Amino acid sequence: MDRNEALQILKKHLPEKRYIHTLGVLETALDLARVYGCDEKKTELAAIFHDYAKYRPEEEMRNIIIQEHFPEDLLHYHSELWHAPAGAYLVKKELGIDDKDIFQAIYYHTTGRPGMTLIEKIIFIADYIEPGRQFPGVDEVRALAKKNLDDAILQASRNTIAFLMKKNAPIYPDTFHTYNHFLMKKEESSIHE
Amino acid sequence: MDRNEALQILKKHLPEKRYIHTLGVLETALDLARVYGCDEKKTELAAIFHDYAKYRPEEEMRNIIIQEHFPEDLLHYHSELWHAPAGAYLVKKELGIDDKDIFQAIYYHTTGRPGMTLIEKIIFIADYIEPGRQFPGVDEVRALAKKNLDDAILQASRNTIAFLMKKNAPIYPDTFHTYNHFLMKKEESSIHE
Repeated sequence: MDRNEALQILKKHLPEKRYIHTLGVLETALDLARVYGCDEKKTELAAIFHDYAKYRPEEEMRNIIIQEHFPEDLLHYHSELWHAPAGAYLVKKELGIDDKDIFQAIYYHTTGRPGMTLIEKIIFIADYIEPGRQFPGVDEVRALAKKNLDDAILQASRNTIAFLMKKNAPIYPDTFHTYNHFLMKKEESSIHE
Repeated sequence: MDRNEALQILKKHLPEKRYIHTLGVLETALDLARVYGCDEKKTELAAIFHDYAKYRPEEEMRNIIIQEHFPEDLLHYHSELWHAPAGAYLVKKELGIDDKDIFQAIYYHTTGRPGMTLIEKIIFIADYIEPGRQFPGVDEVRALAKKNLDDAILQASRNTIAFLMKKNAPIYPDTFHTYNHFLMKKEESSIHE
């Protein structure tokens, strides 16, 4: 599936504002793929379709999580989290894009996870820093992303946890596992330097 | 074991400053036990011995965690966390205090956990708010503890996570799970009110 075809399909599933966000993620993700040597074709598709399920009814996303045996604890957290695993599933099922790397990049783009692959890191960070994003701390993550993806992920996770705590919101375990993982990875690498 | 005997034993294991902290925890925990209707004798022993292992060599604490099959992920986090499970074990083994409630209150006093029992909550909060504690946010938790222990635990967990993130320190999962648990419990109870 080429870029234009993918964008044509996507456009039908998102309102204008979210489509423009996706173009920002696409541009940012491809920049990062070139810098860090990630497969550009896969990065393109993962970026275009990362929010594919964002506007599906909650009931549909809930059913997918149950039927696909995705972790049921997702259902105890904000439904905002559901579009990522539901999207990974729907992109495979409805569009026939059957690729594990793309699946996982979409699946984990909201929370991250310990041991993320390169493409997962790129989609996670591109979603956080694309040019349309404006919130406190985003410029720091933009600067880090140019130098070290892991440092950018650590800082983005830290910001997200602080933001959620300020909102009095629960924090999905993958988010803090991501924080702990990239923090400890950094400490270990600094010990061995 | 009566209070004086327990304090005599404890005194041998702690430097003066930590002993005075323990007297503060004891006084605070007994106040809370009276307010919330917890067994005063058990609360007394758990409070007196909560930091029993605080000054044991790291190697001894590490060995206890391994030998007792306590969660090994503890060993990937700061050794500051180890004295709680190691202390629970040593109080039982060396002092013969064989009581599940006291064991758990000592075991979880640093991180808390979802579904804490009343005595666990009291020791956790007393350790956080005893009169010798002076740090930003402690007065808010003191005030909450008089009205609702769960609210106090939620706020203490939130403060601890923020404090550790500011120090660039990893956060042991039980701390996060405690925050999420007491936050979601509060949301559920406010829905049903």
